[in-house]
Amino acid sequence: MRIDRARGLMREEGLDAILATSYEGVGYLSGTTIMTQRSIPERLAAVILPLEGDPVLVVCAVEEAQVRRQSHIGDIRSYVEFSESATSVIADVLAELGLQRARVGVEEHSLPARRLAELQQHLTECGFGSGDRLFARLSMVKSDDEIRLLARAALATDEAIASAYGDAASTDKEVADQLAAGVQRGGADSVAFLVLGAGPTAAEAHPVAAGRRLESGDVVRCDVGGYFSGYYSDLARTAIVDRATPEQDDAYRRLWDIHDEVISHARAGIEARELFFICEKAFKKNGLQMSISHIGHGLGLGLHEEPIIHAHNTTVIEEGTVLALEPIHRDGGPIFHVEDLLAITADGPEVLSRSRDWSNLPLISMAAPAKGGGVSTPP
Amino acid sequence: MRIDRARGLMREEGLDAILATSYEGVGYLSGTTIMTQRSIPERLAAVILPLEGDPVLVVCAVEEAQVRRQSHIGDIRSYVEFSESATSVIADVLAELGLQRARVGVEEHSLPARRLAELQQHLTECGFGSGDRLFARLSMVKSDDEIRLLARAALATDEAIASAYGDAASTDKEVADQLAAGVQRGGADSVAFLVLGAGPTAAEAHPVAAGRRLESGDVVRCDVGGYFSGYYSDLARTAIVDRATPEQDDAYRRLWDIHDEVISHARAGIEARELFFICEKAFKKNGLQMSISHIGHGLGLGLHEEPIIHAHNTTVIEEGTVLALEPIHRDGGPIFHVEDLLAITADGPEVLSRSRDWSNLPLISMAAPAKGGGVSTPP
Repeated sequence: MRIDRARGLMREEGLDAILATSYEGVGYLSGTTIMTQRSIPERLAAVILPLEGDPVLVVCAVEEAQVRRQSHIGDIRSYVEFSESATSVIADVLAELGLQRARVGVEEHSLPARRLAELQQHLTECGFGSGDRLFARLSMVKSDDEIRLLARAALATDEAIASAYGDAASTDKEVADQLAAGVQRGGADSVAFLVLGAGPTAAEAHPVAAGRRLESGDVVRCDVGGYFSGYYSDLARTAIVDRATPEQDDAYRRLWDIHDEVISHARAGIEARELFFICEKAFKKNGLQMSISHIGHGLGLGLHEEPIIHAHNTTVIEEGTVLALEPIHRDGGPIFHVEDLLAITADGPEVLSRSRDWSNLPLISMAAPAKGGGVSTPP
Repeated sequence: MRIDRARGLMREEGLDAILATSYEGVGYLSGTTIMTQRSIPERLAAVILPLEGDPVLVVCAVEEAQVRRQSHIGDIRSYVEFSESATSVIADVLAELGLQRARVGVEEHSLPARRLAELQQHLTECGFGSGDRLFARLSMVKSDDEIRLLARAALATDEAIASAYGDAASTDKEVADQLAAGVQRGGADSVAFLVLGAGPTAAEAHPVAAGRRLESGDVVRCDVGGYFSGYYSDLARTAIVDRATPEQDDAYRRLWDIHDEVISHARAGIEARELFFICEKAFKKNGLQMSISHIGHGLGLGLHEEPIIHAHNTTVIEEGTVLALEPIHRDGGPIFHVEDLLAITADGPEVLSRSRDWSNLPLISMAAPAKGGGVSTPP
């Protein structure tokens, strides 16, 4: 199914073969995700898919047992790290498949320059070109199984946020730790990223909780994701410590109205940039300033997949696209940020990520500081 | 200090400038780590360091506030994502610095092929070459501050493992969740990676805990790391559920003896490959088979930094090198894996990662299964 779609796109793009080397590309084509492609990217893995014939999976010997058990690809070649060259194994496979002079689409957006140079040295007549657009189009439309997995991940992550915001806390780090524990317990393989700002750090794009004492009226903003069977979750929620001012309530309500309006327009057939322009208009209508250059992105094995929702993207949203939409309100001070996941269905957008109603600005209760003060302790 | 060292190496390697683009390279030269370089690598950041004159930091506008506050680099140029090209900003800076025809060392091991092609299109006469060796040498020797941070991270991670192994558990996922929570509470910004195998999955290189019931005699192996102020921790420990067989005790004791012998030889002046050969001999002497192609690596902003301890690496270990040493015993069945962090000091190796004595095979108590069985629940 994925292989067939890939071959259809290869014909459209005039490619004789594609060479996947990213975590996302290899995961998509092999049906198994290799954790170390993220943590140890030097440990190259690859899928070679020709227009006809079977795909070949190249992995480091360390990963061979796992991929043999999990991948549908039967032809697996392994190399021994530090004594064998991954690119020479890949080049041998390409030669074996008669692709020495073929047009091979590579993941130029992520394949390290040195690796491409090595491949070109091995196969001087091979026409390595960009497969970036193909890979982006390929992963943009999700299967029902993928949508179910992404929905489960999103809901578990939202429950973790609701639970962490629901507990009284005395420091930003306590909230962050509860959040991480909740994502983990909710079924994540592990936490993928964890942004938590409170008070002054809520004005930064990617703050880390450092044990600062919460104060009444602080804006708390999280942007958090886990890996669930290799796929991402990615949600953002904003809350206020103790008591919100009318201005905070008002700003949040406006942001939420913008958010819901943009979601309602996320339908198959619309261009990514049109959705961005709708968001711009909604900001204007609601009297807020829009200060961001993108308002969302596809989500799957990758964190920022196509379609990225920005002013220059003419990519058409399709049925089966899964979108993380995340408008941000920022007026010099703290960031108000909400992010939901939706699937584009035949009937329109379906929000996958709300375990509760977030339309009113949530409050976080202040707890007495833990002993020692300012430093988090076990719950 | 770092800038001076970098310039010394640039002169040795005949480079007029270096261009850092990786999380590690930018973090090292700018003194601030940009979280999204890991999670959103398309969002390019860069440091341009010429032989003379001030370095320039190029970042996406989203990250500008953070780096302005945290970096010692004063000359910061930002670009707006999706409407401005990061590589054209970098090319402009290189041109402004008179480096249009210079020899510029780039991080070929990680810089995406497309980015290098863009740079070369902007500056057709610029001699972009490999700065990989320079960057590896640069980060290999840690400052006292870096060693203190890595030691704190290692110790907190070891305490998290000791605590998770010390709690009774009924499933692999419970152990993993406790482990993650402990790393997080121990001061990590977030968990970086989490490998946990138990029973059958302990035979795999990078298993994920999936809620399998623990059984008496199961080997449990974790390999876990957190991000601490942007730096990695990375430790592996092996335990047995309930009761170990004499064979398990014996295998572990041999592995531990090998581990300690290799550590004792980790001194300034020795080549990485020599340490690998010492490990090979120790395996032989202890009657175990060595089945791995590397037994350790440097650790810092990167997970697998130089010196990688493998049979072909002639890199000389220096004072200030911080090494994660991790021998593995595997005999067809489950993996026994221990990993410690050490700093190479003038007086020899100093182990940084032992919050307790691990020389005897630890045991994990079995808990009654949680309600619903086999699925983890909040502690």
